[in-house]
Amino acid sequence: MPICFSAFTWPDNALSACLFCPPMNAPASLPAFTRRPVSAELREALQQRFGARCHTAQAMREQHGVDESIFSVEPPDVVVFAQSTAEVAEVVTLAAQHKVPVIPFGAGSSLEGHLLAVEGGISLDVSGMNAILAVNTEDLTVTVQPGVTREQLNREIRHQGLFFPIDPGADATIGGMCATRASGTNAVRYGTMRENVLALEVVTASGEVIRTGTRAKKSSAGYDLTRLMVGSEGTLGVMTEITLKVYPLPEAVSAATCMFEDISDAVRAVMDIIQMGVPIARCELLDTASVRFVNAYSQLGLPEKTMLLMEFHGSPAGVQEQAETVQAITDEHQGSAFAWANTPEERTRLWTARHTSYFAAVQSRPGCKCITTDTCVPISRLADSLLACIADAEAARIPHFLLGHVGDGNFHMGYLVDPNDAAECALAEQLSDKLVQRAIEMGGTCTGEHGVGLHKMRFLPQECGEGALDMMRAIKQALDPHRIMNPGKIFA
Amino acid sequence: MPICFSAFTWPDNALSACLFCPPMNAPASLPAFTRRPVSAELREALQQRFGARCHTAQAMREQHGVDESIFSVEPPDVVVFAQSTAEVAEVVTLAAQHKVPVIPFGAGSSLEGHLLAVEGGISLDVSGMNAILAVNTEDLTVTVQPGVTREQLNREIRHQGLFFPIDPGADATIGGMCATRASGTNAVRYGTMRENVLALEVVTASGEVIRTGTRAKKSSAGYDLTRLMVGSEGTLGVMTEITLKVYPLPEAVSAATCMFEDISDAVRAVMDIIQMGVPIARCELLDTASVRFVNAYSQLGLPEKTMLLMEFHGSPAGVQEQAETVQAITDEHQGSAFAWANTPEERTRLWTARHTSYFAAVQSRPGCKCITTDTCVPISRLADSLLACIADAEAARIPHFLLGHVGDGNFHMGYLVDPNDAAECALAEQLSDKLVQRAIEMGGTCTGEHGVGLHKMRFLPQECGEGALDMMRAIKQALDPHRIMNPGKIFA
Repeated sequence: MPICFSAFTWPDNALSACLFCPPMNAPASLPAFTRRPVSAELREALQQRFGARCHTAQAMREQHGVDESIFSVEPPDVVVFAQSTAEVAEVVTLAAQHKVPVIPFGAGSSLEGHLLAVEGGISLDVSGMNAILAVNTEDLTVTVQPGVTREQLNREIRHQGLFFPIDPGADATIGGMCATRASGTNAVRYGTMRENVLALEVVTASGEVIRTGTRAKKSSAGYDLTRLMVGSEGTLGVMTEITLKVYPLPEAVSAATCMFEDISDAVRAVMDIIQMGVPIARCELLDTASVRFVNAYSQLGLPEKTMLLMEFHGSPAGVQEQAETVQAITDEHQGSAFAWANTPEERTRLWTARHTSYFAAVQSRPGCKCITTDTCVPISRLADSLLACIADAEAARIPHFLLGHVGDGNFHMGYLVDPNDAAECALAEQLSDKLVQRAIEMGGTCTGEHGVGLHKMRFLPQECGEGALDMMRAIKQALDPHRIMNPGKIFA
Repeated sequence: MPICFSAFTWPDNALSACLFCPPMNAPASLPAFTRRPVSAELREALQQRFGARCHTAQAMREQHGVDESIFSVEPPDVVVFAQSTAEVAEVVTLAAQHKVPVIPFGAGSSLEGHLLAVEGGISLDVSGMNAILAVNTEDLTVTVQPGVTREQLNREIRHQGLFFPIDPGADATIGGMCATRASGTNAVRYGTMRENVLALEVVTASGEVIRTGTRAKKSSAGYDLTRLMVGSEGTLGVMTEITLKVYPLPEAVSAATCMFEDISDAVRAVMDIIQMGVPIARCELLDTASVRFVNAYSQLGLPEKTMLLMEFHGSPAGVQEQAETVQAITDEHQGSAFAWANTPEERTRLWTARHTSYFAAVQSRPGCKCITTDTCVPISRLADSLLACIADAEAARIPHFLLGHVGDGNFHMGYLVDPNDAAECALAEQLSDKLVQRAIEMGGTCTGEHGVGLHKMRFLPQECGEGALDMMRAIKQALDPHRIMNPGKIFA
């Protein structure tokens, strides 16, 4: 397993300071995690109850103690594969009795270190809980288990004329997407998981099963527990059923690419599109490097310039009207004539390339790791924010690429670092810190969609303020007094 | 002040059982509230600090201990008019030191008893905090103080080409609308306060000032404190600044009325409109009684039949396309040809009539009080739910009317009762209980937009389950250990 920061290997059960980061934002500000190992008694109880679905072999533990983040593996003591809400409740109840951590695990595609067992404990794999429990076509809702992936869901509801729009790059599980309040390319029109989860079944930190919300479209019945759970990164309970809004497949869909010589023109075109209130369904930016990477990875043959990749949904006339409005705006900003992808196959090819762009970028530099940013700023500050971070990366001469959901003010800068080059890693983190600092000063956030995990934790005091963080801690303490639910994530 | 239930007058500082309601849902399940009077020392401290803005006269106290609900006045001990966040923090800090209740007060338009000082204490009137602090036209956001009303906001941003869509019937304050998670006629397209609040400044129960969220359109930075506060009915803190999404005024707007001989046809037309995914901006139903009331109150001269009142927003071509689709659907359900309101003046006249329909109904029976329901069900159950409650009301021969945001599955049944006729009041509550029971069994909620307050509290155990209610109580206990923030509301 490649190691980015040698100091991030928790050699003696404590997270040491990173030697390479600037002191103000150094992971040194993370606490020294103390492992709470699973006792022989608990391990035996789990093995007796779950048999072949309870694993203690190193390979399985390591696979469950790592994700797509820069961090090295930190394995749990035990991995249990649950198959039902009742089983999840049993595992959490046992963990609560023994006061050991439980880390819910889905597809393992976190980018921020959510899945590392920094205090040891049980990785609770819910990927096998992958049933679609109900499709209410008339109400445009579905209820699914947490291990259903976004692609699986869309495959299974497509023939009923429905789709679920939230699409992080990876084929993440719906449970993981709830946990990180994920979004993706369609959020500019359809919102994020925040707007698209109607209700949840949750196993609380004491092992009790509760329901939050109903299938009604709106409600004023008490505290919004649904949205408290969405984005809580597994730190308040385990989601075991998720009721989502889904949407009728649009009557007409067209995707278009528009090329720009200068990235600043592309960004300013996006700002105009959003400020005009065009109901664009997708509005993605790929810088020249990203286009080059996806060309190489997906054999697309796109002109290697800055690209806007857009999609329009609606009636045939509505799609045409939107496209004409947007083409007029991009024309004003020196964009090329649109190249259209009108067939489902052409569109799938383009969007698959977009979704694999992160992996295309990582493949471009063999052996590299990617340090990814995830800031989101008010749209009026998009150009200022985005252009400044590109200038910084170019001045620092570090391999980088930029892509993102620019219609939301959200973009990802990826620094492609040699994990064995400590100076390069440190430089990338410095650039990332500067980028985040700037976004927060502009009224933005350090994370638009990936979550906090371990990696963004150091930015929360500045972004949220200590008062709001104390309120989060008070909620955590009230709902999980023994700190068993994914401890060490979001805040110390 | 008219009294609906004689037993609701808290004669000796305790809320007694209502004699007239069926035992299973009786307000007897409410706890016996104990007043925590403001001490002479605290009263003097408030008077010294706030001078003429601190009131103890009975008239002012009574005005602040009542709202538009069926409940009789329960006055606070002191009323303080705050003018700034710092002043709110001072009042809450003093209240926390003395462990006496604080009840935030805006326009006083709650329908559910939120403003009654059931445990005494301080009514904190923020209606004077009515500044619009920022209009960020490019980002489509505004930041306002809590005392700004929805009509004031729309007046002040209209000339910048913007509007704020959430419109409860009353000219409520934005603070009150946040507190109850309000919605209104535009929610079918634009969402509710849940979807339209980006960030808050809140004075916590200890008097600390915190911020939740940023102006970024989306974020995954920790627990969603914004949405925890939205809908918390003043029980977790006092909102002192609110950042909202606003929208560009649509290029084209058309309103239309469509009449039906039979209400079931109207309801089934609405279900088809929603299930077709038409992006209709407003889709309101008024039964024949409601149309008669608004005719009398607003001199509209509408045909006295069941009416759908709809509005379409978009480009001129888009509006026309939507209207044609909807007209085709209503035709299939025996609706009349649309009558159009195309000028702003005509539309304002219709929507003002819709917004005053509650008052029009109450005026139709001099001396009456209105017991209002607020259920919201999945759209597939709208006809079942709505037609059954009309049948019940007709069988019971109680004066009633029905109107609502049927595009959301949300409607209001109003029972117009003689407050001095105990049997009639009891009958109305019985009908309301049956209606709510049915909605919950259909996967719906007891309150789509009015909040719980005192009046809907008895339904929460069935709707949410004791586990979820316990989680709400744990959060309340963690954030307000001395129960000073609007105690006695939502849950006991």
